[in-house]
Amino acid sequence: MLGVCYYPEHWDETRWAEDARRMVELGISFVRIGEFAWSRLEPARGEFDFGWLDRAMDVLAGAGLKIVLGTPTATPPKWLVDEYPDILPYDEQGKVRGFGSRRHYAFSSQTWWKESARIVEIVAERYGRHPGLVGWQTDNEYGCHDTTLSWGAEDLKSFKRWLRLRYQSTDQLNEAWGTVFWSMELNSFDEVALPNLTVTEPNPATRLDFWRFHSDQIAAYDRMQCDIIRKHSPERWITHNFMGFVSDFDHFKVGDNLDLASWDSYPIGFVEKFPFSEEERNRWAETSHPDIAPYHHDLYRAVGKGRFWVMEQQPGPVNWAPWNPVPKPGMVRLWTWEALAHGADVVSYFRWRQAPFAQEQMHAGLNLPGLDELSPGGIEAGQVAEELKALGPLPQTGKASVALVFDYQSYWTTMIQPQGKDFRYEELCFRWYEGLRRLGLDIDFVRPGASLEGYALVVVPCMTEVDVATESAFKRATGRILVGARTGSRDRNFAIPKNLPPGPLGESTGNRVIQTATLRPGLSDAVSGTVSGAGIRWREYLQTSADVLGRFSNGDPALTENGRMFYLACWPDAALLANVLTLVAEKAGLQLFPVPDFIRIRRRGNLTFAFNYGTEDWVLPLEADIVLGNRTLKPQGVLAWKMGDRQP
Amino acid sequence: MLGVCYYPEHWDETRWAEDARRMVELGISFVRIGEFAWSRLEPARGEFDFGWLDRAMDVLAGAGLKIVLGTPTATPPKWLVDEYPDILPYDEQGKVRGFGSRRHYAFSSQTWWKESARIVEIVAERYGRHPGLVGWQTDNEYGCHDTTLSWGAEDLKSFKRWLRLRYQSTDQLNEAWGTVFWSMELNSFDEVALPNLTVTEPNPATRLDFWRFHSDQIAAYDRMQCDIIRKHSPERWITHNFMGFVSDFDHFKVGDNLDLASWDSYPIGFVEKFPFSEEERNRWAETSHPDIAPYHHDLYRAVGKGRFWVMEQQPGPVNWAPWNPVPKPGMVRLWTWEALAHGADVVSYFRWRQAPFAQEQMHAGLNLPGLDELSPGGIEAGQVAEELKALGPLPQTGKASVALVFDYQSYWTTMIQPQGKDFRYEELCFRWYEGLRRLGLDIDFVRPGASLEGYALVVVPCMTEVDVATESAFKRATGRILVGARTGSRDRNFAIPKNLPPGPLGESTGNRVIQTATLRPGLSDAVSGTVSGAGIRWREYLQTSADVLGRFSNGDPALTENGRMFYLACWPDAALLANVLTLVAEKAGLQLFPVPDFIRIRRRGNLTFAFNYGTEDWVLPLEADIVLGNRTLKPQGVLAWKMGDRQP
Amino acid sequence: MLGVCYYPEHWDETRWAEDARRMVELGISFVRIGEFAWSRLEPARGEFDFGWLDRAMDVLAGAGLKIVLGTPTATPPKWLVDEYPDILPYDEQGKVRGFGSRRHYAFSSQTWWKESARIVEIVAERYGRHPGLVGWQTDNEYGCHDTTLSWGAEDLKSFKRWLRLRYQSTDQLNEAWGTVFWSMELNSFDEVALPNLTVTEPNPATRLDFWRFHSDQIAAYDRMQCDIIRKHSPERWITHNFMGFVSDFDHFKVGDNLDLASWDSYPIGFVEKFPFSEEERNRWAETSHPDIAPYHHDLYRAVGKGRFWVMEQQPGPVNWAPWNPVPKPGMVRLWTWEALAHGADVVSYFRWRQAPFAQEQMHAGLNLPGLDELSPGGIEAGQVAEELKALGPLPQTGKASVALVFDYQSYWTTMIQPQGKDFRYEELCFRWYEGLRRLGLDIDFVRPGASLEGYALVVVPCMTEVDVATESAFKRATGRILVGARTGSRDRNFAIPKNLPPGPLGESTGNRVIQTATLRPGLSDAVSGTVSGAGIRWREYLQTSADVLGRFSNGDPALTENGRMFYLACWPDAALLANVLTLVAEKAGLQLFPVPDFIRIRRRGNLTFAFNYGTEDWVLPLEADIVLGNRTLKPQGVLAWKMGDRQP
Repeated sequence: MLGVCYYPEHWDETRWAEDARRMVELGISFVRIGEFAWSRLEPARGEFDFGWLDRAMDVLAGAGLKIVLGTPTATPPKWLVDEYPDILPYDEQGKVRGFGSRRHYAFSSQTWWKESARIVEIVAERYGRHPGLVGWQTDNEYGCHDTTLSWGAEDLKSFKRWLRLRYQSTDQLNEAWGTVFWSMELNSFDEVALPNLTVTEPNPATRLDFWRFHSDQIAAYDRMQCDIIRKHSPERWITHNFMGFVSDFDHFKVGDNLDLASWDSYPIGFVEKFPFSEEERNRWAETSHPDIAPYHHDLYRAVGKGRFWVMEQQPGPVNWAPWNPVPKPGMVRLWTWEALAHGADVVSYFRWRQAPFAQEQMHAGLNLPGLDELSPGGIEAGQVAEELKALGPLPQTGKASVALVFDYQSYWTTMIQPQGKDFRYEELCFRWYEGLRRLGLDIDFVRPGASLEGYALVVVPCMTEVDVATESAFKRATGRILVGARTGSRDRNFAIPKNLPPGPLGESTGNRVIQTATLRPGLSDAVSGTVSGAGIRWREYLQTSADVLGRFSNGDPALTENGRMFYLACWPDAALLANVLTLVAEKAGLQLFPVPDFIRIRRRGNLTFAFNYGTEDWVLPLEADIVLGNRTLKPQGVLAWKMGDRQP
Repeated sequence: MLGVCYYPEHWDETRWAEDARRMVELGISFVRIGEFAWSRLEPARGEFDFGWLDRAMDVLAGAGLKIVLGTPTATPPKWLVDEYPDILPYDEQGKVRGFGSRRHYAFSSQTWWKESARIVEIVAERYGRHPGLVGWQTDNEYGCHDTTLSWGAEDLKSFKRWLRLRYQSTDQLNEAWGTVFWSMELNSFDEVALPNLTVTEPNPATRLDFWRFHSDQIAAYDRMQCDIIRKHSPERWITHNFMGFVSDFDHFKVGDNLDLASWDSYPIGFVEKFPFSEEERNRWAETSHPDIAPYHHDLYRAVGKGRFWVMEQQPGPVNWAPWNPVPKPGMVRLWTWEALAHGADVVSYFRWRQAPFAQEQMHAGLNLPGLDELSPGGIEAGQVAEELKALGPLPQTGKASVALVFDYQSYWTTMIQPQGKDFRYEELCFRWYEGLRRLGLDIDFVRPGASLEGYALVVVPCMTEVDVATESAFKRATGRILVGARTGSRDRNFAIPKNLPPGPLGESTGNRVIQTATLRPGLSDAVSGTVSGAGIRWREYLQTSADVLGRFSNGDPALTENGRMFYLACWPDAALLANVLTLVAEKAGLQLFPVPDFIRIRRRGNLTFAFNYGTEDWVLPLEADIVLGNRTLKPQGVLAWKMGDRQP
Repeated sequence: MLGVCYYPEHWDETRWAEDARRMVELGISFVRIGEFAWSRLEPARGEFDFGWLDRAMDVLAGAGLKIVLGTPTATPPKWLVDEYPDILPYDEQGKVRGFGSRRHYAFSSQTWWKESARIVEIVAERYGRHPGLVGWQTDNEYGCHDTTLSWGAEDLKSFKRWLRLRYQSTDQLNEAWGTVFWSMELNSFDEVALPNLTVTEPNPATRLDFWRFHSDQIAAYDRMQCDIIRKHSPERWITHNFMGFVSDFDHFKVGDNLDLASWDSYPIGFVEKFPFSEEERNRWAETSHPDIAPYHHDLYRAVGKGRFWVMEQQPGPVNWAPWNPVPKPGMVRLWTWEALAHGADVVSYFRWRQAPFAQEQMHAGLNLPGLDELSPGGIEAGQVAEELKALGPLPQTGKASVALVFDYQSYWTTMIQPQGKDFRYEELCFRWYEGLRRLGLDIDFVRPGASLEGYALVVVPCMTEVDVATESAFKRATGRILVGARTGSRDRNFAIPKNLPPGPLGESTGNRVIQTATLRPGLSDAVSGTVSGAGIRWREYLQTSADVLGRFSNGDPALTENGRMFYLACWPDAALLANVLTLVAEKAGLQLFPVPDFIRIRRRGNLTFAFNYGTEDWVLPLEADIVLGNRTLKPQGVLAWKMGDRQP
């Protein structure tokens, strides 16, 4: 189903009814509102103005729209910031981040929690039982604009509290952090300092704890909002709109608070943000890379425990990337279908109408700036709505054959200690995901420690700390497991395990890492054997008792197999990655359906979808019962067929 | 005529007379002095030492030199800074910019205005009627070293005052800025915050007002100095020495205060500063690009309402660019003649003698460091002096055939909201200017709203806000008008016009822009039709009722013609730009005289000059009455001939 | 002989004896300890815990190891920083650099001097006569992490004191700095400001004095530690462990305090740090460039007045470079032998055992992380120990045939005023050094002003200020002298000399520099004549009365010869440099032994060593009495032979 984001406060009240009517006419079912409206709801301390929102909700509900209401905490108004400057966040350089845009608050501020609870309670109480209301969104895009970590006095205070709880005594903290190194020992928790502005790099264990602390805080802050909402708004679900490639906090933990996950899908902007090559950036500039949106759909399906929305879908050119091309005709439709193919319940466009003023004035909407006139993206949304109606209800999303274990802490750990400056956890996961999808496989993201049973293949691109739960999930897993380099390389205190990496997996993999090389761009180490290609960026020196399926140029093991466990001792280049994934997928007994680099397929229930991101036609290489599109899949086209017995 | 900048305070008094004698001997008529001498004039609060300047002026005037005196406000002395630290400016990161170089003051400081008025009054009173004095220079290089905008407490105070005057009420301010977006609404002017250090980008309307406010302040500050000078120094003219590619404030408004404009011409340093390609940078490293100096001559002729000087002419290698090559032999002479060809009254070299000490010790002068010995540049200056004498008085500078509308606010607007990160207003104007000059055309810069009558062709590379005066000037214009992309794309409040861009020009151009793409380097959209080439960087999606002279690859209009109005819907690549300019110039009935990329021509009255920036000879392709140089124009050579009836 | 760095405080006391036994077994003679142990020695103000160190020293000495003890001042503990925050340093942006890593102190803080003296006295008193103790290391790596210069209130206070002593009166200071420029004149020393955070560049003379002041401070601080140590620890030598490519302070002056110099040799990390081309970086990634370590050996042999150690030798991959490859097998052995060939008394590895925790957990040791098991580097160290034993005592290191005058102040001067942004003093010296070693020559570094007698050839890549002592050393020199561009270009007050550069060398070279060009990458000026190649980056315009051996493209002199003095008027490209060095070396009567770019040779007494950094064999092209290795020198191999009569 389709939805849209709407800001009644941006438009004259006289236009609301027509807006609602045209939404319904276009095939929109859901409308998200309110998430930035604090200054309109409470123009000054204790002075409330609910009339406009009362009327807006009535108009929207009256037109048949289902309302999702956002809590307005992402934009505290100026009067509040002036009253309590201690709510402001600080950047890593120690500078306050001021009023004038959004997310200008620190999760560490106690004042901020009090004020957040107050406004959420007031809004939840007033609208929690509104008949048009079906769900809530907490805040907006936690972590956006680098706001997970804050480096102010409030943050230090809260960090100390968190450390006291974690370590009980400074002896334990000193031991955990290894503060004997460089005389960093602390005599009391009061002596703890923020891990920034040091002469050279601060202690990595301190930095990891600082990151964990902030991640925990976001989950707790979100939980506070959810608890208040649930008290006042029975039978409504709660979500949060997560972002793409923001891994600063553990989304799984926030997901634990929620009924469903949602995310904001701007596929084109990521072409600039993700570390693609210039060649890839030029190639995918107007369509996005074919795995960018799907990667996140699959991730957030896991965060939402199987249930997710796209809360904000890019409807045309946006404003925030270094360059902002117009998506190719058909892409807004393609992205929408693709989200549905990956299991989205609802795809909701951002936003109904382009705002001609303020920061996002160059961000397209379903309607032209200020006008009651569909934009090109708006027209495509209408097309999807009609196709959806024609197709009838979509089948349930099933379990994939491949699990990818995704671990936020590994992102933090490798950011803190890259060792080679191009070791990027998200890039690694993305490239493994891409490699699997090029084989026509569906993928479930799985959080660390969760059950891996039922998957024919489990891939772990990198998981720096393998905790007890994960170790045990590996043991109980029923399929093959491919483990990447750096896995098990740190214990919970950011120390190298006593038995050397891969630590807890030493025995099951048969491996021990005695040295690690990071390789500058231009350097690589050729791999040959059952698999071939090269190791780049990160290359481990293994001692092994396992079977060796590939060897580096000097004969050292590169890929090992020990029972169900495969271990890849490097960051693989594209060739090696494709080889390794094919080999282990075949050993796992999976049926592969290799696709060109501009085609992707994805199954939902008994339907298989195909998407063409390229510039040439693709012909479906099998007989099928086609339900959407044609066997010849045009550029930017969508194709869906009913799965046969022996077919993908 | 020729001038020179001189610092008597840098040299022992015994050397002044000989310096003056040698200046006159070299053919120098004017000497600028005093603009950094505050600490010598007032070594401590209220203690003045005028003796040295009295004597210096007498010596210079006695030798027959005409004196231009600078007010010393660009360098407040340390005792003043220590007494009133509130005069110091702040950078955008909120850090104070301290004493130790120059321009360490904020235009917003009330103390600073008082102190400036005091010293200007004292200097003007003492020297305003000195018989050797012919003119004044206010301050020195406003805006240099990024000093237009300042971000301190004094700036916020003054900004609030300015906003109160502009908007009267916060309702109007909230409406104008669109503060309903992201809950940015303000309840009082006291709540206004500086538009820096925000979590993500601040409101663009706020930023534009902040820029306008600073620009207004500079004009008012300069006006204050002019008023004081005029009171004490009748019959002397006033100028200010502007800079190259500094567009942070509206130079036309400062020009309104002045009798003539002047600027500081360092052509070679700009080869590094301007966004040229590396290939261009290597090619023009030792001559500068052939349009760099002329572009500014034509701009400042407009700022000076027809009258301008080069106040500081590069005489050799300088010190401030990333690399500082020695100009090719002949370039100092060429630059001098070129300035005169573009209408300069006087070309004044910076400086008489290279100072062997302090920050500019690697900056060449007409004499070698510390010595009474001409440098290579000094010798070339002498050559020009002799040629000038031989040629007799130059004719009056006439009106050009082409007008280029230059708009400082468009620079601010596109800096605030580039949308594509290589959209640079100055680069766009420069490339259009270059394209026109490659056709052998002379160009007048015209400020927004000024009359365009009498020009066969008007070009508007980009003018984001088309105000009522400009709209009306367009209507009264008598020639063809070529309007570039983004023109009319914003109203005065930085909002998209209600009828979409080009707003006020929608009707006259027949166009409406419904979407805009910005294209990363490597991407382009081919244009074909009457003109061909490609759009790069910025590409609009037009709906049009006009004639379409060029189309993008998908058939969308790229160049339209509607009566006298041409509209170009993209940033053109070099080929498209040349095509478009040639086409419209021909349609405008202009006689073209295309020149190679290393040759430029320029007319002054009945004389036409040609300049060779290249490495090969160029032969004048017509019979002419040559008054300077030869028909075969050597590299770095200058040629001038009397214009024939049907000749350029 | 070999040594190792050890941290007993990092390991359980029960492991010390076995560690000591295994050290001796491996062939280690020296052990450095204690330099980061303040928080263990004095866990809180005035509470001391010496027991552990007493026992550790007894265990180590008991095993037969000779102990080098470091003063623990590089890491003041948190309680001290909290008690006296004024000891913290400030960065150039004015931000405090806090606790949490190391070197978090300002040399300017008087409190810090008091506290340093206190702890050094306590440690020296307790351990100064320990029978196992043979020497001391003051502090650790002065200047590391950019800690020479600090920009806080304490620094300003101390700078004013230093200036008062240097200049006595502000008149002299104003004269020296040329403050008449830009009204920078000061009325009292109180008015002096830090030369940072200025609007544009601060006065270069001020900056140079600020640098000299900091350099002087380090020497005085070190002297203070040495004086205390000598009082309590008779018959022990003192050293400091310097770094590679840190030229922020005058190492020769610190060396004056010491009995011997030492340095920390991490050859691979420098491949990323030094401005090599990408091609060179890829080529030398796993071996380092063949001149990186030798350059520093020769430099520190001079700093140590003939005596030096490698205090920390890279034993495997490290953690601090952007990428950290594993050294090729054999390199740890090669580096060790190479240090010895260049005259090192001892090569001491960093560190005994890789620490699995804290900042340096990815830094290899002689043992695997946390384990009693040799790493690959540890095994190579053992090999060297055995070879050393077999070879017997090494001969004394003799005087080289070539002297390279190295001048820290020239580094400061050219950093302050690069004029062309790729003018890098260290790079220039390195390239000259490389060029000489490619000719098979041995090189002594010589400090400015020291005697040059006995050298057949003296090279001076650049020496901005030629002081009286140096001028006189040049006069008394007995060999040829090759002087590079910029030499003599500044007087002691950072002013251009009255007779123009090369100032004091004007007469002896026969040259006068009247202009200077800096050339961007891509530009060069061809040189031809007796030598050929091109000038890049820096190109002077000379007037000369000397013989001209090479000319620039326009005929200007590029290389001149005047008696014993050669002058090279540019930064030479590789070809020109090789030509010039060959020519002058031949004119100096030196016997050359050119080697391929991956081979280097070096003599120690009657032994000549050869080292292979490449990927192919090299065959010694002469008959020789080989004492180590084979005539066919394998990649990463070491060869040594006894020098014959007419052989290198």
